[in-house]
Amino acid sequence: MTAQIIDGTAIALKVRNEVKEKVAARIAAGKSQPALATVLVGERIDSATYVSMKQKACAELGMTSYHKPLPADISQEDLEKLIKELNADPKVNGILVQLPLPSHLDEERVLQLISIEKDVDGFSPINLGRLAQKGREPLFVPCTPYGCIYLLKEAGVTIKGANAVVLGRSNIVGMPAALLLVKEDATVTVVHSRTKDIPAVMKNADIIIAAIGRAQMVRGDWIKPGAAVIDVGINGIPVLDDKGNPVISEKTGKPKQKLVGDVNYDEAKEVAGFITPVPGGVGPMTIAMLMANTLRAAEIQDK
Amino acid sequence: MTAQIIDGTAIALKVRNEVKEKVAARIAAGKSQPALATVLVGERIDSATYVSMKQKACAELGMTSYHKPLPADISQEDLEKLIKELNADPKVNGILVQLPLPSHLDEERVLQLISIEKDVDGFSPINLGRLAQKGREPLFVPCTPYGCIYLLKEAGVTIKGANAVVLGRSNIVGMPAALLLVKEDATVTVVHSRTKDIPAVMKNADIIIAAIGRAQMVRGDWIKPGAAVIDVGINGIPVLDDKGNPVISEKTGKPKQKLVGDVNYDEAKEVAGFITPVPGGVGPMTIAMLMANTLRAAEIQDK
Repeated sequence: MTAQIIDGTAIALKVRNEVKEKVAARIAAGKSQPALATVLVGERIDSATYVSMKQKACAELGMTSYHKPLPADISQEDLEKLIKELNADPKVNGILVQLPLPSHLDEERVLQLISIEKDVDGFSPINLGRLAQKGREPLFVPCTPYGCIYLLKEAGVTIKGANAVVLGRSNIVGMPAALLLVKEDATVTVVHSRTKDIPAVMKNADIIIAAIGRAQMVRGDWIKPGAAVIDVGINGIPVLDDKGNPVISEKTGKPKQKLVGDVNYDEAKEVAGFITPVPGGVGPMTIAMLMANTLRAAEIQDK
Repeated sequence: MTAQIIDGTAIALKVRNEVKEKVAARIAAGKSQPALATVLVGERIDSATYVSMKQKACAELGMTSYHKPLPADISQEDLEKLIKELNADPKVNGILVQLPLPSHLDEERVLQLISIEKDVDGFSPINLGRLAQKGREPLFVPCTPYGCIYLLKEAGVTIKGANAVVLGRSNIVGMPAALLLVKEDATVTVVHSRTKDIPAVMKNADIIIAAIGRAQMVRGDWIKPGAAVIDVGINGIPVLDDKGNPVISEKTGKPKQKLVGDVNYDEAKEVAGFITPVPGGVGPMTIAMLMANTLRAAEIQDK
């Protein structure tokens, strides 16, 4: 058996095209152009790269972005002042504070300050608290877990009544993914570094969301035949030659790296019913869902 | 094998005595007497009974309570006005809004309005959101799940690394209990009415928290030998005579009722390692933990 590959690149493009069409339609109808404010504190290269990808996506989809680069040593007070200004600014629909923040800043206070109507990352405690509650709906769901569920649905995987295992309990992926799956009527198990026998727990899973950040940790024989495997991990590992030695890049003089997920893809695809590749699986969905959330923010604020 | 009975009545009394001593000590040290405001909308008999039990507990432990009975048809605006007054009142340390509220009121808005420093029920979305997040601590944990974890710890049950199954996903018990268990490093599975094969999932559980509201649903052969079983259910069922007919009360002329949990106690106690009885298990813990939370609120507000 070979798994059906869930093509995240294609599904993300579909989401982006839908957003693009709706943005064009709302502008044609005389409504405002959706706008995302991106707040970047300091000069981390990875954070700067993510922010520029988000700005680029806005431009491609006909939305505006306002970039707010801030010095790494900005005070809590000044950062909070900016968030309050963005909350009050009617031109701004969504506010994205790129995480992690430098350690002298109180991340929770900053996230809590973002108006829940502009919280397109879904990390405000009110949106998260609603995600954990029956009968309450968050205005926004965190982008990566939202993307995971979207991929499952697009692939036609039945979530209701399924046994789902979430590997990892991070604030950004694992826990919100587990809460979303409970809302979707799955029987959800949260597995983490303290779990005693991870393979035994996973063996009953109809759905696996792997988000623990360990390269190729999930082996083929941990997976129930036919299960749907969503691999959130993005880990760099050295490229090896035939003899098992690291390949050195001629260009950089450093060992060559390749990206792999938290799942051993080659083994897993022989057992699973559905699987996301890395790269090209969950990765492209995060920005696509952020774009969908930004459009949604504009629609909420129309009212 | 016969399970060790976890005596909730005795453990709740211990918690209450500790609170009582600390209250006496803080008053002797010239600090304020902790005070709980109880807000009761309408005249539901069950709600009125719970509120009066909470007021009585305050009095027994040397704390004050301010009772705020409100008409069933109070407007959202007037109820919110009262909450704001209680938030601002320095004499009030804890605010308890007895649930459920009449259906014309927006429960979430009311709970969200309670200052998180006075949210002794732990139901404000910010406290719940923090419960769902790594590295963040709620100021208050909802009383019943807090009581369940307290009972496990008092009985000496190891939570870290254990397989825990929470049966039920209510906002008041199931979901916060699951989030607490994840924080305590258990591997947690949330099971509910949509779960396909509940006995199979439970069979691996080292810890069971049953909070689904179905009389004696959990059978002895669902339980792993030696597991710890915390039974949150309180269900009334008819008392039957030897022939299986309902016994009629001479006093009321109605069928006699008895209280049972969500677990078939007689079967379970032969298999489990630890078990809470109903009544006398989790029940008394809820008010004890509310009293502990009210004292904690006063301590937080000292600062």
